[in-house]
This record gives sequence, C-alpha cells and structure tokens, in this order.
Amino acid sequence: MGFTVTRLHVGDYEQVTVRELANALACPLEGEADRQLTGAAPLDSATPADLSFAASPKAFTAAQTSQAGCVIVGPDYPNHSQTVIRSPSTRRAFAQALALLFPATIPAGIHPSAVVAEDFILEGQVSIGPGCVISKGVTIGPGSTLHANVTIYDRVRIGRNAILHAGCVVGADGFGFALDEARRYIKFPQVGTVEIGDDVEIGANTCIDRAALGVTRLGDGVKLDNQVHIGHNCQIGNHVVIAAQTGLSGGVVVGDYAIIGGQVGIGDKARIESGAVIGSGAGILTSKIVRAGEPVWGTPARPLREHLKGLATLARLARAKNRSSE
Amino acid sequence: MGFTVTRLHVGDYEQVTVRELANALACPLEGEADRQLTGAAPLDSATPADLSFAASPKAFTAAQTSQAGCVIVGPDYPNHSQTVIRSPSTRRAFAQALALLFPATIPAGIHPSAVVAEDFILEGQVSIGPGCVISKGVTIGPGSTLHANVTIYDRVRIGRNAILHAGCVVGADGFGFALDEARRYIKFPQVGTVEIGDDVEIGANTCIDRAALGVTRLGDGVKLDNQVHIGHNCQIGNHVVIAAQTGLSGGVVVGDYAIIGGQVGIGDKARIESGAVIGSGAGILTSKIVRAGEPVWGTPARPLREHLKGLATLARLARAKNRSSE
Amino acid sequence: MGFTVTRLHVGDYEQVTVRELANALACPLEGEADRQLTGAAPLDSATPADLSFAASPKAFTAAQTSQAGCVIVGPDYPNHSQTVIRSPSTRRAFAQALALLFPATIPAGIHPSAVVAEDFILEGQVSIGPGCVISKGVTIGPGSTLHANVTIYDRVRIGRNAILHAGCVVGADGFGFALDEARRYIKFPQVGTVEIGDDVEIGANTCIDRAALGVTRLGDGVKLDNQVHIGHNCQIGNHVVIAAQTGLSGGVVVGDYAIIGGQVGIGDKARIESGAVIGSGAGILTSKIVRAGEPVWGTPARPLREHLKGLATLARLARAKNRSSE
Repeated sequence: MGFTVTRLHVGDYEQVTVRELANALACPLEGEADRQLTGAAPLDSATPADLSFAASPKAFTAAQTSQAGCVIVGPDYPNHSQTVIRSPSTRRAFAQALALLFPATIPAGIHPSAVVAEDFILEGQVSIGPGCVISKGVTIGPGSTLHANVTIYDRVRIGRNAILHAGCVVGADGFGFALDEARRYIKFPQVGTVEIGDDVEIGANTCIDRAALGVTRLGDGVKLDNQVHIGHNCQIGNHVVIAAQTGLSGGVVVGDYAIIGGQVGIGDKARIESGAVIGSGAGILTSKIVRAGEPVWGTPARPLREHLKGLATLARLARAKNRSSE
Repeated sequence: MGFTVTRLHVGDYEQVTVRELANALACPLEGEADRQLTGAAPLDSATPADLSFAASPKAFTAAQTSQAGCVIVGPDYPNHSQTVIRSPSTRRAFAQALALLFPATIPAGIHPSAVVAEDFILEGQVSIGPGCVISKGVTIGPGSTLHANVTIYDRVRIGRNAILHAGCVVGADGFGFALDEARRYIKFPQVGTVEIGDDVEIGANTCIDRAALGVTRLGDGVKLDNQVHIGHNCQIGNHVVIAAQTGLSGGVVVGDYAIIGGQVGIGDKARIESGAVIGSGAGILTSKIVRAGEPVWGTPARPLREHLKGLATLARLARAKNRSSE
Repeated sequence: MGFTVTRLHVGDYEQVTVRELANALACPLEGEADRQLTGAAPLDSATPADLSFAASPKAFTAAQTSQAGCVIVGPDYPNHSQTVIRSPSTRRAFAQALALLFPATIPAGIHPSAVVAEDFILEGQVSIGPGCVISKGVTIGPGSTLHANVTIYDRVRIGRNAILHAGCVVGADGFGFALDEARRYIKFPQVGTVEIGDDVEIGANTCIDRAALGVTRLGDGVKLDNQVHIGHNCQIGNHVVIAAQTGLSGGVVVGDYAIIGGQVGIGDKARIESGAVIGSGAGILTSKIVRAGEPVWGTPARPLREHLKGLATLARLARAKNRSSE
C-alpha cells in the first residue's frame, strides 16, 4: 500500500500514529491525527495508547465511554469528540490495523532443533519452528510458518502462506484395515499423499491423513481450527472453514465456502456442497449430501427449521404428558 | 507435617511402614504397625507389600478377603484382624499416601532438548521436559512440571504447581477470520495472551488458545483432561473441572467449581455459572446461560429431569406407534 | 511366502511384474504376466504402470474402462481383455500387493533427536522417530515403529509390530481428583501403567492414560484412529477397532472384536461386550453394558432399529403438528 510503519519496538508492539493507520487503511480519520498508538484492546479495557473498534450499535454505547486512544467505527457512528477512523467494514479494518501494530516476529529459516529431510528445499521466507519434523519429498510454499512440534510425513505438499499451529500432523496414515482369514486386521497400506493449497491455516493438534491411494486435498484459503480430524481421501474445496474438534471420515467431499461448526461428525463419502452450513455438533451420515441454503443441524442432520420443529414437538409432548400425569 | 519418609528405593517405590503412613496422615491404625509397604494396588490384586483402600460398603466385602498389607478404611469398617488405617475420607487419605509411596521423580530443570526463549527465567523447582518449546515472554511459577513435547507460545503466564501433560499447546492463535471484498478470509490477528492460575493440571494434547485481544484466563485449581479445547478469550474461574474432548468456543465464561463432562460443546459467549454441572456430550448454544442447581444434559442442553422426560416421552410414543402398526 | 520382490526403486515405489505379484498373492492371473507395475491408484486415475482393484459390481463397470496396468478382481469379474489377478478377497489381496509395491522405508534405530531413557533396550528392527520421548522403564517389542514426536511415559510396555503415529501420548496421568476440606482438588496420584499387546496401531495425537492403580490394557491387534482418548484403567480386548475422536472414560471394558465408530463417548466403567458395534457419535452411559448383536446408536445408545424408530416417530409427530397448525 506504499505505507511504511515506523518500526519502534515498544515491548511486542509497533508504535504508529492514528494518521499512519488511517493512511494504511485508506480510511478517513476524525480527531487527533498525531496520537501515538502502541497496542490494541477491547473497548472496556483500552487505554489512551490502544486502538479499539466498535462494530455494532451495542458496541457504539461502549465506545462512547471507552478510554481507547482511537476507535475504528462504521460510517453511522455518532462521533462527538473522540479520535476515530471510519471504515465501512470495521472488523476487517481492525484486523488489518492489528497486522500493522503486531507484525509477525517469527524469523524465517529452519530452527536448529527441527528435523528436516535432506531433500527439503527452503523457499523464500518459510519458518520451520522448533521441534518440527519434515519427512522426505515434502514441499512448502514461500511465506509459510510452521509453529513448534509440527509433524509432516513424506511427500506432503503445502502451498504458500500456510500457518500450521503447534502439534498438528499432516500426512499420517489413513485408517483402513481388512480382516484376514485368521480374523486378524491387516493394514490397508496408505500410499497416497496430502496436497494443501495457498493461504491455509491449520489449528493446533489437528490431523490430516494421507490418502490410501491418490490425494487428500485441501483447497486455497481453508481454515481449520484446533483438534480437527480430516480422514484419508477427503477433498476439501477453497475457503472452507471448519471449527474445533470436527471429524471428517474417509472420502468426504466439501465444496467451496462451506462452513462447518465445531464437534461435527461427517461419515464416509458424504458430500457437503459449496456454501453449505453445518451447525456445531451435527452428525452427517455416510454418503449423505448436504446442500447449500438452509443450515443443517442435529444427528442425523436435517434443515435447521425442521430440526427445531422436532425439538419443539418433543418438548410440547413432554409437557402434555406431564400435565396428564399430575 | 514433620514427617520424613525413609527413602529406600525399591524399584519405583518408596518403602514405608504402616506406622509412618498413619503418622503422615494423622490417622489411627490397627494391626501391624511395623509392616513394610512398597506399593499400592486395588483390593483384588494387592499383595502383602501393598497399600489399598475401601471406600464403600461394596468395597468393604472385597477388603475382607484382600491380601493387601494395609487397607485405608472408613470409621465404620468392621475390622477383624487386618492391618488398617482409618480415615473419615478414605479416598483423600489414599491419595496422600500414594504421594508418599510414589514421590514425583521428575528432575527440576530444563531438559537439554527443550527449546526455551532467551528471556525465560527458571524459578525454583520447575521441570521443563524433553522436546518442550517455550517462546519469549513466558513465565512459569515454581513447582510446575511440563511433560514432554509441550508447546507454550509467547507471553503466556502460568502459575505455581502447574502440571502440563505431553503434547498440550498453550497460546496458539484463536480462530477468527473476516471475509474481504474478494471473498477471501483474512486472519483476525490474535494478539492477546493466556494467563493460568496456580495448581492447574492440563491434559495431554489439550489446546488453550490465546485471546484475540486481552486474555484467555484459567483460575486456580482448574483441572483439564486430555484433548480439551479452550477457545480464545474464555474466562474460566477457580477449581473448574473439564473432562476429555470437551470444547469451548470463544469468549465462554465459566464460574468457580463448575463441573463439565467429556465431549461437551459450548458455543460462543455462553456463560456457565459457578457450581453448574454439565453432563457428558451435552451441547450448550451460543450465548446461553447454564445455572447451578440441577445438572444439564442433551443438545440443546436442558435440566436433566426435563431432558430425561423428553427421552421417556419419545420412547413411549415409539412403543405406542409400534403397537398400533402391529 | 518364498517370494522375493525385485527391489528396483522407482521413486518411492518398487517395480514388480504382474507375475511376481500373482505369485506372491498365490492367485491366478489373466493377461500380460510380464507387465511392469510401479505404483497403485484408484481405477479412474490409474495409468498402465499402476495396480488397481475392483471389489464391487459398481467398481466392475469402472474397471472396464480403467487404464490400470493390472486390476485385482473377484472370481465373478467378467474379464474381456484386461490384465487381472483374481482373488476371492480383493481388498485383502490389494492390501498385500501394496505392501510389496510400497515397502516400509522407515529405518530401524533411534533417531538422534529422540530422547530415550538410559535403561531403554532397542530390540530388533524397532524405529524410534525424530522428537520421540521415551521415559524410563519402557519396553517396546521388535518390529515396532514410533513416528515423530511420540511421547511414552515411564514403565509403559508395548508389544511387537506396533505402529504409533505422530504426536500420540501413551501413559500420561489418568484424570482423578478428590476435594479436600478446603475445597481444593487434590490429585489422586496415577501410579499404574499401560500395557499394549502385539500388532497394535495408534493414530496421530491419540492419548492412552496410565491406570490410577494397576494397568490400562490394550490387547493384540487393536487399531485406534486419530485423536482417540483412552481413560485410565480401561481394559480393551483383542482386535478392537476404534474410529477417530472417540473417548473412553475410566475403567471401560471392551471385549474382543468390538467395533466403535468415531466421536463415540463411553462413560466410566461401561462394558462393551465382544463383537459389539457402536455407531458414530453414540453416547454410552456410565456402567452400561452394550451387547453384541444389533449395533447401537444415539445418546443414550439403544439398539439401532429402536433408535431409528424413535427418530421416525418424532418426524411423524412434527409433520402432524405442522399440518394441524396450517
């Protein structure tokens, strides 16, 4: 954006003026343009050196009495005498401002304690954290960060600007066995791999299994929370968001921009269509198709209104039973 | 307590006499005061060198025929000719006795394979296990133990006497994104931190995310089981117990002494009041308030009796339908 | 089997002829016995150098037009002019063939970055991966592989031919506390251990807790998926399969050949009988007994048909209510 933040480290923070921030965001400011900001905080705990933001009418009230040095607000915020930056999308502007105030400080390079296969080639500005293990045949795109203790099995490919949080495991064997004649399970060798697009974030202790054959695939812009499990041969589109502790069995297909809540369970070969929304805790049966439109919820998952109707019916019947037995 | 255990290592165990144990527990003994104990075991597999305990009338029966060298029993145990120590709270007394028989053997200090930021200061009797990674700005109180392969991100603060089990991750980024104009998710920087009180235990592979802004907080005496997920900005009071695989979304507030079962899911900004009890597998919706008193269960969670009534109603209706269609 | 694969490395793959494979599997072949195979792939993406398989009539259709160099098929596959190997159990034969095409390449020995207690004795062909931590008193049987960043606490015993995936934790403390008079939780010391049989596979980031007293036990041939939690004192029989993210509380007993789906929760001291089947997402209450025969599902879990009847009844009532209120 042609903007250079004055890099004065104040603890973990940069120091910028309101004017510099407003310029960087290409947004108008009102009030003290030269005020110095060194941090960010919620409205109720912000100090005069902090940036904050107000995204809703409810937050507007809190903003009126906040001690924040500057508040990012929407166009309809009734400003009296505060220093504010106005943006039509306050959350996004605040996110961008935070990236300036708190620039990433993770150094590029391979930490000496990481164990990296001989054939690994470090491409521009990749950071491999302490305790990471990268097996042979792995590629990681420029701009990517692996936090501590991440494990990447062999032949996995990861795109640009990935963020992998501590303890996540990419490329472990999928879960497949066949009973032999002696009634022992023999392992179905998992000889496929994992391919991950650009701009993906993977949460702490999340696991993405390699394909049995072929490829487990995550598209661009996928965001996985902590402790998610992605089974072998899943095909996950672009810009899919999956919240914590959700598990996908083998061969699940997820379309672009699907949003999947936390603790959801998805059975083998289910298909989640582009833009579909699955509520937290829902259970999707094997081979089911979840369409976009109305969110689904419950186990087995149904359109939200239908599920809520079922819950209401049950509550009504229980009350009726209760009255009749009194 | 002015008591010194005779430290004779017998394998992993100390060797103590029944008298020494009874003195340490400040409890009366009956039988052979000089009997040597070197271990502990359940009633049915205990040998004459083992301590055991009987906390219920059912266990009393097993105690009568146990080979245990000494049994910790309640005041109402009908002792005939066994060596027993009597305590009004047998489980607690047994727990204390185990701590004497099996003193912690984890050496204080930083294991050479751990990676610790330059600014980390080791305060009295802290143990940092193999493969741990501690980023900059972290403080850990005296008496704390980090088992192997624990990851602590920057600026996290942990109190005294903490026990962190292998693979847990404290301070990874919370999960927050905003769609930009090009319909790509941009990361909402997670610039807060995590503060953890005294006497906290954190299970293996559990994850506690840093706050987006401000602090994710755990009070004193909190006990988290394995594979728990604590989202950004959660505020967890003192002496809260959370069983395995439970997940808290962002901004959840939990009051003192709440008890949360396993595989519970709690939505954003829900409030669990002090002393509330949530049954395993329950789902608490976003912004809901769970009060103390009757435990809650089900999804959406309701008071236990109400939920059970709903289940019973459904079962009755299914039976009626069944009969009418026969 | 008296068969030696010609070990010509082609990338990650061996190179074998169809004849060699057929001989190794002791199965008849049809077509080009001398064709060279260097990999394996699903029917729709296989090349003439790939092995594939067709296990169902649906797959038979895909097999007819596949470019695969060789397809393993059942006795009833209507072969026209393809190169096939016939087997009465195609999946199993394919699994065996994969083991020949993709021989394990993990070197035996202890990776220099692993931290292993002084008393650990390496028995034949064990592989301890990078970043693993093995505490004192641990035994691991020959033929076993620990992938990266695995943590084994003290005194754990693991049998032959185990596969432990990255980040799994065996032997962490079970979850047990007692409130003392000051209403603080005191830890119930977890002084037991874990014993694991032969031919066990443990998924990434799975946790198996040590017993409070005595032993947490897994039999021979147990297969655990990723992020499974096994609580203290569980007794798991032989050839039990447990899918991802399932959690067993303390003292659960599971009989031989039980099959437990993903995200199942099992309460303290429940008993899952030999051969029982539990559907994904089910919840088994404390002390319940699950018998073999019909699979169970739902929370609380019931026989599958009964549970489905309940769901159908509810749907019917909701529809009726809907009509009456239109």
